[in-house]
Amino acid sequence: MYLQERNTSKIESLHQSVAVRFDYDVHFTRGLFEPSNPLLAKVLNRDNVTKSIIVVVDSGLLEHHPQLVAQIQNYTNFYSQIINLAVEPIVVPGGEAAKNDPTLVEQIHQVVERVGLCRHSYILAIGGGAVIDMVGYAAATAHRGIRLVRIPTTVLAQNDSGVGVKNGINAFGKKNFLGTFAPPVAVLNDFDFLNTLDDRDWRAGIAEAVKVALIKDSNFWQFISDRAADLANRDSEAMEYLIYRCSQLHLNHIAGYGDPFEMGSSRPLDFGHWAAHRLEHLTNYRLRHGEAVAIGIALDCTYSYLQGLLTKKDWQQIIKTLQQLGFSLYVPELAIDLDDTNSESCVFRGLVEFKEHIGGELAIMLLQGIGRGIEVNTVDISLYQKAILWLQMIETNISA
Amino acid sequence: MYLQERNTSKIESLHQSVAVRFDYDVHFTRGLFEPSNPLLAKVLNRDNVTKSIIVVVDSGLLEHHPQLVAQIQNYTNFYSQIINLAVEPIVVPGGEAAKNDPTLVEQIHQVVERVGLCRHSYILAIGGGAVIDMVGYAAATAHRGIRLVRIPTTVLAQNDSGVGVKNGINAFGKKNFLGTFAPPVAVLNDFDFLNTLDDRDWRAGIAEAVKVALIKDSNFWQFISDRAADLANRDSEAMEYLIYRCSQLHLNHIAGYGDPFEMGSSRPLDFGHWAAHRLEHLTNYRLRHGEAVAIGIALDCTYSYLQGLLTKKDWQQIIKTLQQLGFSLYVPELAIDLDDTNSESCVFRGLVEFKEHIGGELAIMLLQGIGRGIEVNTVDISLYQKAILWLQMIETNISA
Repeated sequence: MYLQERNTSKIESLHQSVAVRFDYDVHFTRGLFEPSNPLLAKVLNRDNVTKSIIVVVDSGLLEHHPQLVAQIQNYTNFYSQIINLAVEPIVVPGGEAAKNDPTLVEQIHQVVERVGLCRHSYILAIGGGAVIDMVGYAAATAHRGIRLVRIPTTVLAQNDSGVGVKNGINAFGKKNFLGTFAPPVAVLNDFDFLNTLDDRDWRAGIAEAVKVALIKDSNFWQFISDRAADLANRDSEAMEYLIYRCSQLHLNHIAGYGDPFEMGSSRPLDFGHWAAHRLEHLTNYRLRHGEAVAIGIALDCTYSYLQGLLTKKDWQQIIKTLQQLGFSLYVPELAIDLDDTNSESCVFRGLVEFKEHIGGELAIMLLQGIGRGIEVNTVDISLYQKAILWLQMIETNISA
Repeated sequence: MYLQERNTSKIESLHQSVAVRFDYDVHFTRGLFEPSNPLLAKVLNRDNVTKSIIVVVDSGLLEHHPQLVAQIQNYTNFYSQIINLAVEPIVVPGGEAAKNDPTLVEQIHQVVERVGLCRHSYILAIGGGAVIDMVGYAAATAHRGIRLVRIPTTVLAQNDSGVGVKNGINAFGKKNFLGTFAPPVAVLNDFDFLNTLDDRDWRAGIAEAVKVALIKDSNFWQFISDRAADLANRDSEAMEYLIYRCSQLHLNHIAGYGDPFEMGSSRPLDFGHWAAHRLEHLTNYRLRHGEAVAIGIALDCTYSYLQGLLTKKDWQQIIKTLQQLGFSLYVPELAIDLDDTNSESCVFRGLVEFKEHIGGELAIMLLQGIGRGIEVNTVDISLYQKAILWLQMIETNISA
């Protein structure tokens, strides 16, 4: 029988089609590590087997929560039938430093190896977006992917990076040069962590909500615009809704376009980001990501207005709202070597790097109205130079 | 409107479900880099844009094909409207050395960065399974995944590792400790490359076909058993069918169980592999992977027979066929520190490492008949010790 099969069948191409489904919940809670809160234990208790976990904590978080490591140990002791804390929580530097130091990923791999963590075990990443990105990359590459639970503690991480399907670290001076697409198994947003954020971190995360509202959801934009003063004044209730709605819009965007791993022409929600990534680099990360995004949004909105895509009224409302939220709309690095796009210091080099990172043709998101993004494939550098000058004038209170 | 929405909606958990589909073809061809063969150009020509490629070649292959680099350059020149060879082909050591040297992955990342390769560009990996695994890992982690075209040149890579969805390198002395699940965009199997394999490499790859036949397909097993002498004598037609059918069974296994990335309890086709991985390590890779798999299969079949799962007739046919194919069924490393499962040299430590790598409970595949694998969660070490002694006797021609 096999001989017949072999002799009659010409050897033809084989087609493979592999479907992979990733499911995860994004929970909103308070007091995540209080033993009276069973959420984390429930998330880890998948098949009634005690699960080994490794916990990685952002050092920036510990400054405001020095008792956190003890709380985690206390929590895992309380739920010891479900959770085995395989090793004392690992503390790593917070902020972009976490993504610039490749030895941190190696360090996590070493711990995974030393304690014998398997692919059905868990790594918990607790902290800001940068720490979560770095830990996510380490988790995704050990044993081809150890389960990751993200516990974002900043506005930015709770409403944006923490709910998505990416991880990454920086290399060769480029943001996220190394990374993978690897969804977490759960995201646990604890609002209590927001109370201890400094004002800059509280504010910075709002920029990603502005971004998604402007290109996706005019109602949400209206909310942000109406409540800008409350948000700037640390109104918890306004912030919680902002995070909830922003993360929901992000989740819908990722799942809704049939290409969550961006293999084809699908695009991430990266309005304002080409300049933002570049400005973070040019300012040596003096700017927080969200602060850079706010400037990037102001720049691309101003360009959209100068292009005739956006009305003056809408443009003015955007600028005013960003200012009410407390964002600066200009840094000197925006204007260095403006006429020399080959210069290492020129912001427009960001357009080339953006194209390389996303792949394919240059594609920049602009605004054609509140809630309505539009993708363009070419830009007018001289008009962008004008937009930068306008932002400089606005920032120095010269009427445009 | 938004206010109403906000005030009435309690903040509840959000559920995310992300579906990702990966499609790729496995082609069988000859003379892949002859300009008269348009296959590669067709594969790269997805949207009528000239595609930049980086090519990484196995140094072992170049020993037998010193003209290959020039052929690749000639081919890409001929199809220059479709293909832009971004940099001269990169040559890396072949065999396990490719997976043991972490600087090779860094080197490929450096080239990606230097030539500005984007995510819609391609990396071609040409060589044996180890080189393809290493290059695949480098490709999967740069810009969160540059498209990978696998061009496997050994029997093992063409019928097994090259068609799957994994990549990886070794770390901490453990096979594939680092890696991801990342399907290629195409696999191009050029049978001409098989002609220059040495006898060991020709033979070694047959072990993976034996593996999949024994646990999945009794007809295919009968083919291998009937044609064992032809296969050992380098009959091309028998080998081509073996590769075709083996890769088909692998593709079906990966796609057919709803969990190609092995996130749940899905298992790879790893019959005979717990001992094989361990023996490769214990022999410092003196054994080829396939040679180690043949021993692992002989061991697990003998254990299956001793357990009463397999009939004596079936067991004898398996042993005889492996011998006809030219495999050794025993190495001295199998018997070191047999009574001390904590010893670094004991083969049974492989059971623990296997559990860590796969995740979850120990699960070993045994045979309950030709074509019928069965998973068990406990093993009898003393019976395994007996099976090892039997293999030793068989190898030294003492009748068991």
